[in-house]
Amino acid sequence: MEIGNMVKAAILGYGVVGSGVAELLTGTGTGRSKKADELIELKYILDLRSFPDSPLTKYFVQDYAVIEADPEVNVVVETIGGVGAALDFTERALRAGKSVVTSNKELVATHGRRLLDLAAEHGAVYLFEASVGGGIPILRPLSECMAANDILEICGILNGTANYIFTRMVQDGVPFAQALKGAQANGYAEQDPTADVEGHDTCRKLCILSSIAFGWHVLPDQVATQGITQITLEDEAYAADCGHRIKLLGRAIQEQDGTLCAYVEPHFVSIQDPLGGVEDVFNAIKVKGDATGDVMFYGRGAGKLPTASAVVADVIAAARKMERAGYRPWQANRPASVRGPEGLPSRWYVRLAEGSLSGGELLKRSGAPAGERAYLTPALTRPALEEQLAGQKVLSIIRVLD
Amino acid sequence: MEIGNMVKAAILGYGVVGSGVAELLTGTGTGRSKKADELIELKYILDLRSFPDSPLTKYFVQDYAVIEADPEVNVVVETIGGVGAALDFTERALRAGKSVVTSNKELVATHGRRLLDLAAEHGAVYLFEASVGGGIPILRPLSECMAANDILEICGILNGTANYIFTRMVQDGVPFAQALKGAQANGYAEQDPTADVEGHDTCRKLCILSSIAFGWHVLPDQVATQGITQITLEDEAYAADCGHRIKLLGRAIQEQDGTLCAYVEPHFVSIQDPLGGVEDVFNAIKVKGDATGDVMFYGRGAGKLPTASAVVADVIAAARKMERAGYRPWQANRPASVRGPEGLPSRWYVRLAEGSLSGGELLKRSGAPAGERAYLTPALTRPALEEQLAGQKVLSIIRVLD
Repeated sequence: MEIGNMVKAAILGYGVVGSGVAELLTGTGTGRSKKADELIELKYILDLRSFPDSPLTKYFVQDYAVIEADPEVNVVVETIGGVGAALDFTERALRAGKSVVTSNKELVATHGRRLLDLAAEHGAVYLFEASVGGGIPILRPLSECMAANDILEICGILNGTANYIFTRMVQDGVPFAQALKGAQANGYAEQDPTADVEGHDTCRKLCILSSIAFGWHVLPDQVATQGITQITLEDEAYAADCGHRIKLLGRAIQEQDGTLCAYVEPHFVSIQDPLGGVEDVFNAIKVKGDATGDVMFYGRGAGKLPTASAVVADVIAAARKMERAGYRPWQANRPASVRGPEGLPSRWYVRLAEGSLSGGELLKRSGAPAGERAYLTPALTRPALEEQLAGQKVLSIIRVLD
Repeated sequence: MEIGNMVKAAILGYGVVGSGVAELLTGTGTGRSKKADELIELKYILDLRSFPDSPLTKYFVQDYAVIEADPEVNVVVETIGGVGAALDFTERALRAGKSVVTSNKELVATHGRRLLDLAAEHGAVYLFEASVGGGIPILRPLSECMAANDILEICGILNGTANYIFTRMVQDGVPFAQALKGAQANGYAEQDPTADVEGHDTCRKLCILSSIAFGWHVLPDQVATQGITQITLEDEAYAADCGHRIKLLGRAIQEQDGTLCAYVEPHFVSIQDPLGGVEDVFNAIKVKGDATGDVMFYGRGAGKLPTASAVVADVIAAARKMERAGYRPWQANRPASVRGPEGLPSRWYVRLAEGSLSGGELLKRSGAPAGERAYLTPALTRPALEEQLAGQKVLSIIRVLD
């Protein structure tokens, strides 16, 4: 298409993000994007529900075929989520030569490579800046601005809900279950919080970051993923004693032998580390390039308007320069090239109900029961640690980020 | 030019950044960019000096006309600095339809608008990601990823030398002059450190950020600029007493009336603020968008390879999509629309040789002479503060970032 032409857009799914995009494109609600105004005209919103009283009611359609068959629609915004209808509609849009912009991390993490290829075949683009880090610009900087670097490591706080829970535990002294309830009451956690607290959401975002950074598709089921449901206030107290905070991190480390060590785990993070000071629903992503060293991106990782604004920026990018706006294609997945963190030596936080551990630094907390001991160990692998702990009554083990 | 063609590049100026770019493009030295390898071939290095023993000796020319007249050269990397030969060569390259990539903040801050227009007229691009924040991706994220936002404020630690000096004062207890000498000995400060310690470098970077964020050219001589040479260890001690660090900030705030409040000043910054934890030569830039809220970019703001890698990423961008890679053109400067911070209410740190100030929070430091008093005031403008201080023996006044 010609640069400078008005783009006509359709939004699929009128949930939190989809309604935010509609607000930014139409100037209804609180948000409005002046820059989008000049370039993008909303034509349809697809939803199975009807909204007769909405100021946007004229946009609603219930049949995707209307959008698919309308040659005027050249950008489709997919904010349905999941890998069902979202996948079907995305494929059909791309095959019709329509560009697709999404915030759907599950779909990109699982089918991203194929959809990027499909977009390229049909002269369209598939853009998904909003799928990682909400309104934080990270995918485009990673793919374009750091293009002269070989990426050595990605390490990030990628899930705002998990980070909010940790912040409430530390600042308010409430245990995990209660902090989770508070997150749900504040709208930060879904009623089914599994994806957030079991690490799946972090895992998907790590896969998208890794696929862009390393150039080949890393799949979620290749990434060893551990959640935060086992973290207790006692662990937080010991972390504070040694100047650390507990954070759920997604990490991908390029190894010398060409494999990728990728995993999701809670970590002790020093408060001296820029990641250690990230509180509440904020996200932060640290990228280590061989030339540029550590670079960090920080901001609100979720929320209606931040995420919607990232979607709209992608729609603008698609409008401005269509076929040149895309990410580079990803090479195929390498089944044997992703490994877990078993071989990665780290210091460890270990809490024992009784007994002791030689060679570690002893930690303190007030109110500890008689016999409880907690340590920071020297650097060693997890299997070596477990060998040392054989026969002990272990309450907690958490990796330290060094 | 055709996408996918090999780009042939010339480097102007073989200083720190220029030699880093040459290393990344040729794989000599420690650096090498695999991605640049496929796309970019170095053809010339312009320098008045000759380097007969360099492995790159075959690339050197001393006459710019050779590069200008060679139709094969389609990207020129300007790392000369300043606004003399750098301006002349940049204009001639753009007029010849060659794209120009630079790290020269003085040139961009002063002549950026005209050079962007000149590039557009001749089907070339003018890119300068490396001019702000060294290897930190900031200009492209600001211009593209945050395109759906209206930017409300930019606030950044933009000069690594000034920040290194503050860090040494706090951590090593050495006074300003000695910390500056250390920075020079470590290669972080120039032998003439004026641009760093008087705030001019921060001012130029703030102008570039503002021009991209707000869409019209903000000029360095419009920005009230105050340096750091007056900051003492006594001030640092009082800052520590109230949980702050002293940082040199460049700020640009979009006011309701359409004017821009832009200035460079040292500030008390809370250690709770992400900017307060930025130490040593690191830079951090906080951008507030109306939709996305605060987003922060963090990393090494200077250094040979970080800066060179940002230059090479721009060369890759120019190679990949030539005329689409550029920043949006800037509108003309608005002479009456930039104002200083006189009307901006802030809390203030005030240190008096004797006397007292009512309504402020009294600060403490050990070893203070009898009669010395230091305060944090409530929020008020600078003129209102000075009225209150009339007739007092004032030793220091520093704005607090709220």
